[in-house]
Amino acid sequence: MLNFSFQNPTKIHFGEGQIAKITKEIPADAKVLLVYGGGSIKSNGVYDQVVTALANHTWFEFSGIEPNPSYDTLMKAQNIIKQESIDYLLAVGGGSVVDGAKFISAAALFEGDDPWDILVKQSPVNNVLPIGAVLTLPATGSESNGNSVVTRDGNKIPFSSPLLRPQFAVLDPTVTLSLSDRQISNGVVDAFVHVMEQYLTYSVNGKVQDRFAEGLLLTLIEEGPKALQADTKEDLEIRANIMWSATMALNGLIAAGVPQDWSTHMIGHELTGGFGIDHARTLSIILPAVMKVKRNEKREKLIQYAERVWSLSGNDDAAKIDKAIELTEDFFKRMGVPTRLSDVDINETHVDGIIDKLKQHGMVQLGEHGDITLDVSREIVELAL
Amino acid sequence: MLNFSFQNPTKIHFGEGQIAKITKEIPADAKVLLVYGGGSIKSNGVYDQVVTALANHTWFEFSGIEPNPSYDTLMKAQNIIKQESIDYLLAVGGGSVVDGAKFISAAALFEGDDPWDILVKQSPVNNVLPIGAVLTLPATGSESNGNSVVTRDGNKIPFSSPLLRPQFAVLDPTVTLSLSDRQISNGVVDAFVHVMEQYLTYSVNGKVQDRFAEGLLLTLIEEGPKALQADTKEDLEIRANIMWSATMALNGLIAAGVPQDWSTHMIGHELTGGFGIDHARTLSIILPAVMKVKRNEKREKLIQYAERVWSLSGNDDAAKIDKAIELTEDFFKRMGVPTRLSDVDINETHVDGIIDKLKQHGMVQLGEHGDITLDVSREIVELAL
Repeated sequence: MLNFSFQNPTKIHFGEGQIAKITKEIPADAKVLLVYGGGSIKSNGVYDQVVTALANHTWFEFSGIEPNPSYDTLMKAQNIIKQESIDYLLAVGGGSVVDGAKFISAAALFEGDDPWDILVKQSPVNNVLPIGAVLTLPATGSESNGNSVVTRDGNKIPFSSPLLRPQFAVLDPTVTLSLSDRQISNGVVDAFVHVMEQYLTYSVNGKVQDRFAEGLLLTLIEEGPKALQADTKEDLEIRANIMWSATMALNGLIAAGVPQDWSTHMIGHELTGGFGIDHARTLSIILPAVMKVKRNEKREKLIQYAERVWSLSGNDDAAKIDKAIELTEDFFKRMGVPTRLSDVDINETHVDGIIDKLKQHGMVQLGEHGDITLDVSREIVELAL
Repeated sequence: MLNFSFQNPTKIHFGEGQIAKITKEIPADAKVLLVYGGGSIKSNGVYDQVVTALANHTWFEFSGIEPNPSYDTLMKAQNIIKQESIDYLLAVGGGSVVDGAKFISAAALFEGDDPWDILVKQSPVNNVLPIGAVLTLPATGSESNGNSVVTRDGNKIPFSSPLLRPQFAVLDPTVTLSLSDRQISNGVVDAFVHVMEQYLTYSVNGKVQDRFAEGLLLTLIEEGPKALQADTKEDLEIRANIMWSATMALNGLIAAGVPQDWSTHMIGHELTGGFGIDHARTLSIILPAVMKVKRNEKREKLIQYAERVWSLSGNDDAAKIDKAIELTEDFFKRMGVPTRLSDVDINETHVDGIIDKLKQHGMVQLGEHGDITLDVSREIVELAL
């Protein structure tokens, strides 16, 4: 196991009816900005529950945060923050809304000249507005980590600060019953690949981390497809297991003390930034190709993954690895997400542009060994065609 | 899954050399009381590392906290706290030292007349001195939870407050290399039974919690015996896996959203309080009897435990349960701990006294269903003879 420091102070309120807890979690004298997305929270009852819980608070609202939240949209929130002296952000929505709230928070108290530097120069984030989250879409883990991704002019740029970890997060699985199949699929696949980025590297004999990661993968494989099936899609227990898995998949715990990959995400970001492909669908396309191209470097963990997650046995390790990759792709297909670039109308004429974007963004040494150069990324992208 | 609220803000610094981190974790202007036990930290180098890290702090020390820390000893610390205006406690030792620091902390700022009320009346703990911990014995999880057990006149009394959760904990597995076999055994068994108390109840379909609990059990079963074997007992990776398992076993995470038992602990406390049996050895004696007496109520989880932790298969559920209990006892024997009261010279003449103590302490409705009455506890104790 590698040395590590780990802390996750986000308070989780999990279960039906827990939105009411925000009343006590947000200081009574706070001036709250409720931030949300396109308005689905108004049709599924979440907005009303939040408004009821904020009845005795002073609050304002800012809506319109889009999937892959854009810099321009987020900067518009600065006006109301200044005008109303906002000192608390309540993000109500999925990972994009929570990510967006993090950038709004960091930009509001940014000490430099231009908040754009937070992204493009990775300027340090020293002061933030506190954030609370009511999660409506289990996927990104943003509700209890300090990560955020913001898009500008087709460029998806991640930034991170432990200061931006939400102070509390409400996870009520009932609110996920109104999600579309596509949102459910994307969320389950996103969480699954988050785990894989922290698990499928090389072994440092971190037995707890490995078992926890495998537990999350097994849960997502068992529960994900059921959330799409007509006879089980209203089952709250399935939604609860998916929701808790997605939070645990990226709250820092399974990453503590082990190497991490993240090449699938970095390549995937270029597919979202350049072609507008849903984030999770870029992952389901790229991950299988990464598994194939890096099968020698990831061999030990691929075998362990085959045995423990897919219950494959026998002495032929290569066959087990092949089968595990195939079963991973099958799982993605059962979740209704693409596994090839051709599924999303990207072809060989686009490869150079994708590699150019990776170069432009400095993504020239990806993966747990830093050995995924632009040439290797090209191999991965071409294999995913 | 049951509704839950979960928060664990303790910062963990894990790995070799991490004791140096306490320099920055404790406020520079704090007046620190270093609390420890019998002095083993002076022979294994931990004391020196801590003193080096505190070179620029103002600090005092209080030693002599015994295993199963006693009320009388802990109260003696109040003098130096008052005299020197101590405002930070640094606990260096195993679970007993950390538990002791929690009581010292709560007693120092107790608002009532007599700190004894914290235990005997479970008076609320509203103000505490902050605590940091340097763990030397992986076992109790006290380094990142708010629980404590204090002994007075043969009575072991637990109390708890989230305010008493250490602000940080240093987990350096190298410091565990100097532990005796008995300390290692006790620690592994304690952690194992902590997991079982939160896992072996009835199913609420908490898939993540179950997988995490099983991952910890598997790790402790795999690594525990190796830490006792001559050819592997110096292996730092084994110690690291045990140490991280023990912390994760009782930091609140695997308990979130699931029922809990704790009857083994409550009965076990009377064996320590009344007969001085090591805490973990009371657990290894009582747990198998609880599994047998409550096999019907715990049937579903016993089968899952048999299949997932012990890889037992077949259609005969009763046989799987029998075998799983037998393998649990075998594991305890491999760890060198007793599994029967007769192993520790307790016999049928002592049963009435044990049951009387349970009654005196109000332990009349134990277990996840509250159905372990004094009569059922008697059945458990008699089966453990």
